[in-house]
Amino acid sequence: MAFVKDGWYCAGWTAELKDKPSSIVICGEEIVLYRDTAGKPIAMENRCPHRFAPLSMGQVVGDRIQCPYHGLEFNSRGECAFNPHGRQTIPSRAPQKTYVLEERNGVIWIWMGDSAKADPSKILALDYLDDDRYAIVRGHFKVKANYKLLNDNLLDLTHAAYIHPTTVGTSTDAGIRVKYSVRTEGNRILSQRLISEVRPTAQFLGLFKEPTGDFYSHLTWTAPSSMFLDLSMVPHGTPKRSVKEPDVDCVLIPGAHLIVPETEHTTHYFFAVSRSADIHNQEKTQAMIALSHKAFMEEDAPIIEECYRLMEGKEFLELKPAILESDRGSVLARRIVSRLLAAESPDAGTEARLGDGVIAE
Amino acid sequence: MAFVKDGWYCAGWTAELKDKPSSIVICGEEIVLYRDTAGKPIAMENRCPHRFAPLSMGQVVGDRIQCPYHGLEFNSRGECAFNPHGRQTIPSRAPQKTYVLEERNGVIWIWMGDSAKADPSKILALDYLDDDRYAIVRGHFKVKANYKLLNDNLLDLTHAAYIHPTTVGTSTDAGIRVKYSVRTEGNRILSQRLISEVRPTAQFLGLFKEPTGDFYSHLTWTAPSSMFLDLSMVPHGTPKRSVKEPDVDCVLIPGAHLIVPETEHTTHYFFAVSRSADIHNQEKTQAMIALSHKAFMEEDAPIIEECYRLMEGKEFLELKPAILESDRGSVLARRIVSRLLAAESPDAGTEARLGDGVIAE
Amino acid sequence: MAFVKDGWYCAGWTAELKDKPSSIVICGEEIVLYRDTAGKPIAMENRCPHRFAPLSMGQVVGDRIQCPYHGLEFNSRGECAFNPHGRQTIPSRAPQKTYVLEERNGVIWIWMGDSAKADPSKILALDYLDDDRYAIVRGHFKVKANYKLLNDNLLDLTHAAYIHPTTVGTSTDAGIRVKYSVRTEGNRILSQRLISEVRPTAQFLGLFKEPTGDFYSHLTWTAPSSMFLDLSMVPHGTPKRSVKEPDVDCVLIPGAHLIVPETEHTTHYFFAVSRSADIHNQEKTQAMIALSHKAFMEEDAPIIEECYRLMEGKEFLELKPAILESDRGSVLARRIVSRLLAAESPDAGTEARLGDGVIAE
Repeated sequence: MAFVKDGWYCAGWTAELKDKPSSIVICGEEIVLYRDTAGKPIAMENRCPHRFAPLSMGQVVGDRIQCPYHGLEFNSRGECAFNPHGRQTIPSRAPQKTYVLEERNGVIWIWMGDSAKADPSKILALDYLDDDRYAIVRGHFKVKANYKLLNDNLLDLTHAAYIHPTTVGTSTDAGIRVKYSVRTEGNRILSQRLISEVRPTAQFLGLFKEPTGDFYSHLTWTAPSSMFLDLSMVPHGTPKRSVKEPDVDCVLIPGAHLIVPETEHTTHYFFAVSRSADIHNQEKTQAMIALSHKAFMEEDAPIIEECYRLMEGKEFLELKPAILESDRGSVLARRIVSRLLAAESPDAGTEARLGDGVIAE
Repeated sequence: MAFVKDGWYCAGWTAELKDKPSSIVICGEEIVLYRDTAGKPIAMENRCPHRFAPLSMGQVVGDRIQCPYHGLEFNSRGECAFNPHGRQTIPSRAPQKTYVLEERNGVIWIWMGDSAKADPSKILALDYLDDDRYAIVRGHFKVKANYKLLNDNLLDLTHAAYIHPTTVGTSTDAGIRVKYSVRTEGNRILSQRLISEVRPTAQFLGLFKEPTGDFYSHLTWTAPSSMFLDLSMVPHGTPKRSVKEPDVDCVLIPGAHLIVPETEHTTHYFFAVSRSADIHNQEKTQAMIALSHKAFMEEDAPIIEECYRLMEGKEFLELKPAILESDRGSVLARRIVSRLLAAESPDAGTEARLGDGVIAE
Repeated sequence: MAFVKDGWYCAGWTAELKDKPSSIVICGEEIVLYRDTAGKPIAMENRCPHRFAPLSMGQVVGDRIQCPYHGLEFNSRGECAFNPHGRQTIPSRAPQKTYVLEERNGVIWIWMGDSAKADPSKILALDYLDDDRYAIVRGHFKVKANYKLLNDNLLDLTHAAYIHPTTVGTSTDAGIRVKYSVRTEGNRILSQRLISEVRPTAQFLGLFKEPTGDFYSHLTWTAPSSMFLDLSMVPHGTPKRSVKEPDVDCVLIPGAHLIVPETEHTTHYFFAVSRSADIHNQEKTQAMIALSHKAFMEEDAPIIEECYRLMEGKEFLELKPAILESDRGSVLARRIVSRLLAAESPDAGTEARLGDGVIAE
């Protein structure tokens, strides 16, 4: 298993972690999440060191989490702070592993690696999630595939015309005019696409009033696997509108697509899609939910899971994939992940030269 | 995994491959099947070389198959013939593996090995499937067991009295008179059984009018695992009737039993059972379907799957099976398969001397 | 896999083995059980030596078990005694492995190891199961965890206050007074607990009439994994009542908890719980059944299975568990099992020094 540990991952939505503990597996590590009496989120190794019960099945007792099996209690530093039995001797043992958390934009971000390296300024900005000019829908799916296949999927939107013709994809008509550029900025990838004079896709929910317009797709991918997908329709010839400046003549539907490796073979997909128009219309909100479910769970996931199954446990490079120009974004992302992996563990990171000869940096 | 690759296998029924592509796994290989504009069936490696999506989830576009994920198109030689993206550069990469197919008697036969060795004259003749004097029912089951256990099952019909007493088996009464012979002819086995003056089994559907008769079971097994089972009831003392000469005094129920290894641990069972009498009676046809399902899926498959589970992944020979005289057919078939395996790969084929001392060639 | 083979395990309840054969897996061995014409239970290797079908799917024919597939018959010594086919030659092959059985107290006990060492005097006495002053409920659950985790669970009843507060557990109130002792006697462990002046738990079904009383829990654990749990409530200050002397002022609810390794990863849990009061009340009996199901299947099993999953296939010791004083019973049991394993196979038995420094013998 090769995961980038020194990176920020979504561990859940703020609104969903309340008074009960919850559990999540990230990069193969079993984690319990709970809030202390001040509401601060805490994350630690989920497995109790006594008989290995999951702390997440226990209760929050003040600032501590209590094991469901025999009642040992652990504080926010992961130390056993109470043993209710006999002479109440605290067992001598290293504390549970704890994790650095950062809560912002309604996302609980977790740093899986060395705490000393955790730098919150590297977290992907998702300020629109706190902006009440947007109607927002959040969700969490799981996919039976390695997380890199989800990076590939989102970084190459050419698939939309084939997989998503009635949801988030534009037509494959020959007449379509596309401008497309991809560049890297450190450990980020900026992929920008403009399709001119095109009919709005179904995900615009009929909110863009003209029959055609200019469709901007600006994707910011941040290593290891968080994406901000800034989609908008504007009247033909009008400049792209910033997500900070929604207005009536355009429709903005920015989205967060947060890919989180659960295990080598399974992946969390946290998403938050939104819209700048008709934001109090509950029917439109229901349609956004239905469309997200359909586009991902009925259209993307079955294909991605089949791809992963057909890879038969082999490494991507080992299968000598055909590389197309349209793979530029996903190839560059794989190279960045590869370099990060190699920095953490010299044996990993084999994809640093993927697509050489086809894709230049 | 050890499969005989240089052999013809059933890849499906002609009637079931129409305008949509389909997929099948044979000998562990993932295959897409589709028809070109002329109706000719085409088979190739199912996994797209780009991102490894299954071509079978895509569409047929003229003579090509289009990948469902990003729209690459492949021609009947397995070559990528169209890339819809950017400058439309065709990726340089070896073509998909393709397979030799031969369509006859309503069966799509596939040659899994070296194309140069594919000899259609070796295909098992099943002419009754094109003969309108028979009512025919076709089906396809799957079993969780190695394919050799299905060869064993069909090559030793003594199990019928125990597993199938109310469907395809005769009674185990002591008074029963059986003549039985098994011989090999090259890579074929001819197993012939005559049970005299016996009541017709349920599979004769009440069509044989006398209370008892002579029951002929002539089995032709063709390596690796295709069988023609020529069953008939004739009035006592009458010679066996050829499948080419059905007549009113006898009832012929010839059947094809085409065993196809899917993986080492799972097997396709394609069957086509038929009858020479009352062929337009839909109730009888429904009864044939129900009886095939019961005999195989409720009677054979549960036992065969348990046998395979109890073998715990071990080789048949390694378990030192007790060999009976009645195993003659299945032992000879295992020896032939063993020789064919050894011819393809010197490390395989360990059962060439199975049953030595009990079963002579 | 490491199982204590030289030990008595429950192979089933007397009342449930009737005229049909049954199967069970114990210590990873597939076993068929049936009764001969005299009603004597017989146990042998379930896998037929011919084509490996499970004999348990066959029929009992007189004193023999008949294979469901081709009709070979095996006698109580595991010998093939009849081959119905051809010249009826008996195949020369070692007989099926057979097992020593001992039926008492309504339990079919099986000895998994060397027959010469089988000593019925070592079987755990459960005489209350034959005593008509008790109402008895028997059951059989399966758990996805190694059997040692069930030993641990029952030998450390401190978990009851956390997992079972509304079924079999007492309150965790600080004011509670507990006397607790654990000692070994050869390969037995006697764990005795007295909780004074406590409210009866739900499992006493409202039968103990006073608001509080003295609650005795006397557990006898017999290697490898059979337990007699002698629970009773008596008026405060009254001595513990023997299971042989139930009386109206006390309520006795003795129980058998017979833990049987199925495989390394799965365990049978046979239990028989009873009560000495209001024994003809069917509603109380139904409540006992419901409470056993809830306490084990809804409360214990989910935690135990999660513990085992979180151990990720590692050995208990390898995970360096925190050992508490309250682990005394389970640690001593693991040491005994460890010594028995080492006696049978020098490579096994690594837990002989578990808890050194915390738990003295």
